[in-house]
Amino acid sequence: MSTGPFAFFPMIFGHEAVGVVESVEEQVEEFQEGDMVVPVFRPNCRECRDCKSQKGNGCSIFGGELVPAMPRDKTSRFKGMNGETLYHFLSVSSFSEYTVVDVVNVVKISPEFPVDKACLLSCGISTGIGAAWKVADIEEGSTVAIFGLGTVGLAVAEGARLRGASKIIGVDLNQEKIEIGKQFGVTEFINPTTCGEKRISEVIKEKTDGGADYCFECIGLASLMEDAFNSSRVNWGKTVILGLEMHRTPLPVNTSLLLRGRSVTGCLFGGLKPKSDIPFLAQKYLHKELNLDGFITHEVGFGDINKAFDLLLEGKSLRCIIRMD
Amino acid sequence: MSTGPFAFFPMIFGHEAVGVVESVEEQVEEFQEGDMVVPVFRPNCRECRDCKSQKGNGCSIFGGELVPAMPRDKTSRFKGMNGETLYHFLSVSSFSEYTVVDVVNVVKISPEFPVDKACLLSCGISTGIGAAWKVADIEEGSTVAIFGLGTVGLAVAEGARLRGASKIIGVDLNQEKIEIGKQFGVTEFINPTTCGEKRISEVIKEKTDGGADYCFECIGLASLMEDAFNSSRVNWGKTVILGLEMHRTPLPVNTSLLLRGRSVTGCLFGGLKPKSDIPFLAQKYLHKELNLDGFITHEVGFGDINKAFDLLLEGKSLRCIIRMD
Repeated sequence: MSTGPFAFFPMIFGHEAVGVVESVEEQVEEFQEGDMVVPVFRPNCRECRDCKSQKGNGCSIFGGELVPAMPRDKTSRFKGMNGETLYHFLSVSSFSEYTVVDVVNVVKISPEFPVDKACLLSCGISTGIGAAWKVADIEEGSTVAIFGLGTVGLAVAEGARLRGASKIIGVDLNQEKIEIGKQFGVTEFINPTTCGEKRISEVIKEKTDGGADYCFECIGLASLMEDAFNSSRVNWGKTVILGLEMHRTPLPVNTSLLLRGRSVTGCLFGGLKPKSDIPFLAQKYLHKELNLDGFITHEVGFGDINKAFDLLLEGKSLRCIIRMD
Repeated sequence: MSTGPFAFFPMIFGHEAVGVVESVEEQVEEFQEGDMVVPVFRPNCRECRDCKSQKGNGCSIFGGELVPAMPRDKTSRFKGMNGETLYHFLSVSSFSEYTVVDVVNVVKISPEFPVDKACLLSCGISTGIGAAWKVADIEEGSTVAIFGLGTVGLAVAEGARLRGASKIIGVDLNQEKIEIGKQFGVTEFINPTTCGEKRISEVIKEKTDGGADYCFECIGLASLMEDAFNSSRVNWGKTVILGLEMHRTPLPVNTSLLLRGRSVTGCLFGGLKPKSDIPFLAQKYLHKELNLDGFITHEVGFGDINKAFDLLLEGKSLRCIIRMD
């Protein structure tokens, strides 16, 4: 986004990471020097009404602005070489050797957890798994359609696979995602450019006896969100929006389809409460009940960070580990 | 609606009723002559995957067209004085001394149930109660906003009241609904014409510490559906659409609000499965746990049926009983 809520420059980007606590402020009791921690953009104070609720994953105290500063005192902890303010990004700013993160945005990880996998729990994969498990709550035997097979969409597939979905349909323009998708449980692939005259929703309805039980939009385009909703089954079809709409276009919902029992919802960070749910996912990985390794396609040093972006833009990488050493 | 799916004329209208079985076809085992029955537009065969599911209330065998004919053989059972076909309406056609209804559209009611209250379970009130209890599943202490205080909206209020909602906000243009609403648990009233510069959603957010837990649209206008959605609370606010959009305008959903954990769904007949849920509501009434009596504001003979429509158009009646004798 070149304008809007993220447009504070200069800014230190990066929000999916793992690190070791170097020091803590006096009042901090939850962490100590040497802890392995995963930072998360979604705050979780565990004290407010929202954090204490079983529903949702917002925090009513720290859930406001995610940029450009620290959540509590609204100051920046970064300065450039000429003393100028460098802004924070999503409360994390991990494209940096050191960063300062509020305790509500940090989760402790067991030291036995492999460090290069821990960073995968910090955002995208947790988002997809959470959407499948917590927001959609997919049951065994369900049919699932996923629009967009980037890391988030593939993590939805992985979540659906682990829940025993009978059919997991992936929709993507990148034909290479057929083979990649299979690794995460995608059973059928649709490339919208090869649907001819048919709408994607028609193709999905044919493949699912009338519509998928669960549809996920993992791109951020209102038209695809509409396709996802229109692909959902009558009576109980649930559409989960994960993509940030890139043009801020509203999602036009056909209310006649809605009245027949369909629903649509959305989530940030897969509806997961970071402090409790990230350790839960970590345990799942340690028990070999969750595939994280398959998401790592590349690894580069911090000095080569732009190569990671090139790979991303070329559609060639899922997750590229960026080493700080 | 002057065009569209209901535009088959001449047609016998009426779908909210009670009657006594006069005769049954040979294969019918569920009913016999003399049974008191409530007809319902929403079929419930109890055999298909959808009827057997715990979710939703559609019927995948008989859930198709509701007009202009009998659901199974697509014939009409009515003829006019000159032998012309008179079409069926919503599988019921109760503005008639006799009608023919498929068994999937009829529910047996205990003979101890007062006949003039039984017809109230046939559509509108069940719709509102069902939306509150089954679709929204309102918890004690919740805040609720209801757009449109006709019978359906007031039945939502009654359902919310019985679930122990802490605040029930009614939105209506008719100022007389303030006093009527109180009878059904409405605790606060908003007339949109007196909101000045403020949007309704802003007023509701002020009254509910940030948004209502549950919002219901009971009119059928996309703009009000949007207001309802925008009035719902971050993290878990759920909007339930009950109104049939009268211009077929899509509901424009702000996806940024959606991503923060809000959801929107819709229902017909309040998500109730007629065969099991109407007897459940009937029991609730017999145990004095459900107010039906308050919805009856008028009573006319069949010959004066147009008076009932006049009262409706003047906003003066909730339910007007039309006697067939």
